[in-house]
Amino acid sequence: MSEARLIPEPPKRNRNLRVVLVEVRNPLNIGAVARAMSNFGFADLRLVRPYDTAYREAVSAVGAGAVLQNSTVFDSVAEAVADCRLVVGATGLGHRQPQHSLYRLELAARQVRRALEVGPVALLFGSEKFGLSNDHVSHCHWLLRIPTRRGHESMNLAQAVAVCLYELIRSPLAARHCLQAVDKATGEELERLTLLLQDVLQHAGYSDYGAAPTAAEKTHRLVRRLSLDSRDASVLTGMLRQIFWRLRHPGETN
Amino acid sequence: MSEARLIPEPPKRNRNLRVVLVEVRNPLNIGAVARAMSNFGFADLRLVRPYDTAYREAVSAVGAGAVLQNSTVFDSVAEAVADCRLVVGATGLGHRQPQHSLYRLELAARQVRRALEVGPVALLFGSEKFGLSNDHVSHCHWLLRIPTRRGHESMNLAQAVAVCLYELIRSPLAARHCLQAVDKATGEELERLTLLLQDVLQHAGYSDYGAAPTAAEKTHRLVRRLSLDSRDASVLTGMLRQIFWRLRHPGETN
Repeated sequence: MSEARLIPEPPKRNRNLRVVLVEVRNPLNIGAVARAMSNFGFADLRLVRPYDTAYREAVSAVGAGAVLQNSTVFDSVAEAVADCRLVVGATGLGHRQPQHSLYRLELAARQVRRALEVGPVALLFGSEKFGLSNDHVSHCHWLLRIPTRRGHESMNLAQAVAVCLYELIRSPLAARHCLQAVDKATGEELERLTLLLQDVLQHAGYSDYGAAPTAAEKTHRLVRRLSLDSRDASVLTGMLRQIFWRLRHPGETN
Repeated sequence: MSEARLIPEPPKRNRNLRVVLVEVRNPLNIGAVARAMSNFGFADLRLVRPYDTAYREAVSAVGAGAVLQNSTVFDSVAEAVADCRLVVGATGLGHRQPQHSLYRLELAARQVRRALEVGPVALLFGSEKFGLSNDHVSHCHWLLRIPTRRGHESMNLAQAVAVCLYELIRSPLAARHCLQAVDKATGEELERLTLLLQDVLQHAGYSDYGAAPTAAEKTHRLVRRLSLDSRDASVLTGMLRQIFWRLRHPGETN
């Protein structure tokens, strides 16, 4: 199967995702989030009350891509999610408000993907230092959590966004196919190599494999265990041919 | 199911993973990779020929964690992977050498997980600017590729590491359970709310729902569609009770 089929263009539903960063301070983080969005085929970046200088720095940075250039700034979470039919907050362990359901990313992404099919969805991320406040969380339908290790839950903002977006675009089907497979050697190629190896070993006086037919069997098994592709089988055969020639003509120049 | 069961301690196989960064230049990237490793429960960070100052800056940075402090520096890829039984290179599209199999991350991670059960595995990442060179790639058994969008394949180094490690620790089973579920309202709670709503509407003279029994059916359906949890049903019932009281006692103080 060709890679083109396995890494398709971003589906139309990607257009329904809004990544909303609330009160983010670091221009590098804003840029890194935009880059991750572009990597995974998402375009709608919204910033709620970013630190002014941080935002201006990020947008004017060399290499600021289309996602950043087209990002929009809002004064409140309410305005940033006004067009969204589902609002999901990403959280560490800071906001375990019992009135909100909390899903691990694997399950959350499944629900977000379904919601994206039918309308706009916002993914909310809080500031680097404080995450989402109770006020921000009150705009969310439910919360998601990346399954980080107990004791070190808090992720870098842009890494958290990257992991969430990856989970949204990952494909269980893709786990079934190799992007680029190498042709394995054929039985004929392996047999040619094996017989040549036996000749070389015999001429070289290698005796560890003992007398035929055990030696023959052992070289057969050895060569098959190498799991050679076609190209490497051919290269090895060429090497052995040269070695075999040299063994039979020790004094001659090539 | 409790969150403790859904986000377990890192399995022992995590100890078998070596994250190998080859010729990385930016101390922020080294620190960010170490943080992602700590988030996902991996500890063995190896650097091949890092820019000296970058490495020293990263290790001496405030907040440099245990992963960074315990990282090791090697002079060559060969030395860095000497104890590994599988070496996998992470690549964009730069190194499509036909002699290497290339797997999408979803499939690659499945194979890496299996290999981690039985021995050390190295995941190789190249420099921010050039990725892995042909020479570095020659130490790999095969390559993996994060399924980024055509036209913007190249990810930030630490984000790429974070996404790969997340795929290694993600659990398909986790997609079946909610970490923190809110108790839905019982039929009794919903019925109490519905009857009270009907009383209020009648007293308020609301007529859009027409005459009973249609109106009764409509309020029943409306309340069920709200998909209320127990707590919110109770709050709404309280609100309606107060409104109902006020409707019947318009002049009185509370």
